[in-house]
Amino acid sequence: MKLLEKTCQQIFPQDSQARDRAKERLDQLTMPHWALGDLMDLAVDLAGMTGTIKPSCHRKAIVTMAGDHGVVAEGVSKFPPEVTPQMVYNFVAGGAGINALARQAGADVYVVDMGVNADLGELTKSGAVIDKKVSFGTSNIARGPAMSIANARKSLESGIEVAFELGSRYDIFGTGDMGIGNTTPSTAIAAVVTGKPVEDLTGRGTGLDDEQWQAKIKTIKRILEVNKPDRKDGIDILAKVGGFEIGGIAGLILGAAAQKKPVLVDGFISTAGALIALKIEPFVRDYIICSHRSVEPGHKYMQEVLGCKRPLLDLNFRLGEGTGAALAMNLVAAAAAVLTEVATFAEASVASAENER
Amino acid sequence: MKLLEKTCQQIFPQDSQARDRAKERLDQLTMPHWALGDLMDLAVDLAGMTGTIKPSCHRKAIVTMAGDHGVVAEGVSKFPPEVTPQMVYNFVAGGAGINALARQAGADVYVVDMGVNADLGELTKSGAVIDKKVSFGTSNIARGPAMSIANARKSLESGIEVAFELGSRYDIFGTGDMGIGNTTPSTAIAAVVTGKPVEDLTGRGTGLDDEQWQAKIKTIKRILEVNKPDRKDGIDILAKVGGFEIGGIAGLILGAAAQKKPVLVDGFISTAGALIALKIEPFVRDYIICSHRSVEPGHKYMQEVLGCKRPLLDLNFRLGEGTGAALAMNLVAAAAAVLTEVATFAEASVASAENER
Repeated sequence: MKLLEKTCQQIFPQDSQARDRAKERLDQLTMPHWALGDLMDLAVDLAGMTGTIKPSCHRKAIVTMAGDHGVVAEGVSKFPPEVTPQMVYNFVAGGAGINALARQAGADVYVVDMGVNADLGELTKSGAVIDKKVSFGTSNIARGPAMSIANARKSLESGIEVAFELGSRYDIFGTGDMGIGNTTPSTAIAAVVTGKPVEDLTGRGTGLDDEQWQAKIKTIKRILEVNKPDRKDGIDILAKVGGFEIGGIAGLILGAAAQKKPVLVDGFISTAGALIALKIEPFVRDYIICSHRSVEPGHKYMQEVLGCKRPLLDLNFRLGEGTGAALAMNLVAAAAAVLTEVATFAEASVASAENER
Repeated sequence: MKLLEKTCQQIFPQDSQARDRAKERLDQLTMPHWALGDLMDLAVDLAGMTGTIKPSCHRKAIVTMAGDHGVVAEGVSKFPPEVTPQMVYNFVAGGAGINALARQAGADVYVVDMGVNADLGELTKSGAVIDKKVSFGTSNIARGPAMSIANARKSLESGIEVAFELGSRYDIFGTGDMGIGNTTPSTAIAAVVTGKPVEDLTGRGTGLDDEQWQAKIKTIKRILEVNKPDRKDGIDILAKVGGFEIGGIAGLILGAAAQKKPVLVDGFISTAGALIALKIEPFVRDYIICSHRSVEPGHKYMQEVLGCKRPLLDLNFRLGEGTGAALAMNLVAAAAAVLTEVATFAEASVASAENER
């Protein structure tokens, strides 16, 4: 059996017994009932994901997947494509947004070359970047598919491999992306999976004006017409309108879920990856934590498909790289701390509320 | 001159030059313009508060002020008043919600006895609790003022003293409260300062049913009729319808602002303290960061008076103790990291967007 299928077979729904035991403990903590709200809901999820009421979230990894996009030829981004490899160098030097936020959260950053359109041999040989390069950028999806079905599988399995390679050393993963032009394939994926009109999903990416925005909508509509992705088939969607880093993110999420590890999904691009993972294996949803709500208008609808009404943070981020996931790792660690470190009324000899005595 | 007046004279608006320099640097970071949204706005504020574009937010202190309330005689809380000292013991033992969340955020917790209705000599003598006890709980505000004007000043100055005692060792403060029954005085303060109807401000506290909620509204209306606080006079409001821990929180905020240190205001009770501080010295607003939006319905209106449209977190918290402030300290540290650790386009040799080159 192939790695992708084998991984999917290892993904099960959350452990309902662990969820029940977590709820039972949280009900008895020395505070008014469920007074830490969403953090307590998250603590129940962590118990369900990990199968224990003492989940550890100390060892944190952000995996930032990088890839290039042939569709930049259509003028969908304000930034030139050489920024993708330049930012990879910036990640390695520790000077990017993700480096600062991961350091703050106590998370390690792994950068993966999934399909950057540049020779990163210098960085992959030294081990500074993980080499999973499928190809030097995707084909232009406004003209045909992004990649072959074989390369779609390869990008997914590369992400799974990264998850398993890091799995023994980390309790929790966060996803991240770097790829000039990648809001365009992500919006196309969102349109296919959510069924919403392209106009409702398309944002300004990294800063388009009105005219550029209209052109982007037109391009995305053309992408969907040209490729006609099968909305039931995650691999088909990825191959036709996706990207190598998006496939890598989807694979990372599948690999995390197969290891019963929580995975914090970052912003718009990462959520497109999560939707691909969801289409391939619906149970993956039980291991996904939506970290934040992006400025991109389609993000809300995509998160709804993942069953997330309200992500942990809503701070007008639109950067990607894993920045939202890194920041939200603090909240996940806090949720685990509430479950594992706060005393119950009985343990602390504190009187409980009238109707709870 | 008295400590309160002297402190207020040391509170100035944010440093606009430092704000400008911070904006200038943030404009050039290796990311699409302002792509970390609210975190970058916060970074500008941190520069303005501290007067430097290299603000440090590493040394974090949560100050949890405890006090009791005579108004519990009216049946406004589901929890018995002995829970206040019991929770102080729980804080000292490290088993409360605030302990878990402060540990996660790397913050130290200081517990202050501002007016607990119990002898805490055992804890204050050992140094586990800071002794600033003004009295053994307030008087019943449904029958008359909470405290004398002299004791209102004493509670404010005690909070200021704590801020100055800790000031040399900490970069940032978070406020916290513990006091059974303290949503009632806080709602009364909110009604006076916001001018909103009591019905719109009153919540379920730690879990009241409909009948208890109606009774609480009635009690708060009576409190306002009996005391007629002067909405222009923070000390009068505190003395008539406040509490010792609320005064302590207001003092802590004033003391932090006088030292140009950011202060993260926790939930409903802490925000009532912030409103008292604001009425005493309007410039204090420039040093306040609203950490989260409480479940309590009045919180939104109170935060609006502080100039905060959207706090950093919105996670259905209703605990107090400083838990929201502790969790949000991660975000403040992250904002400082964005300003101080992320490279500019020039520093990292990354190409910027078309219209920015």
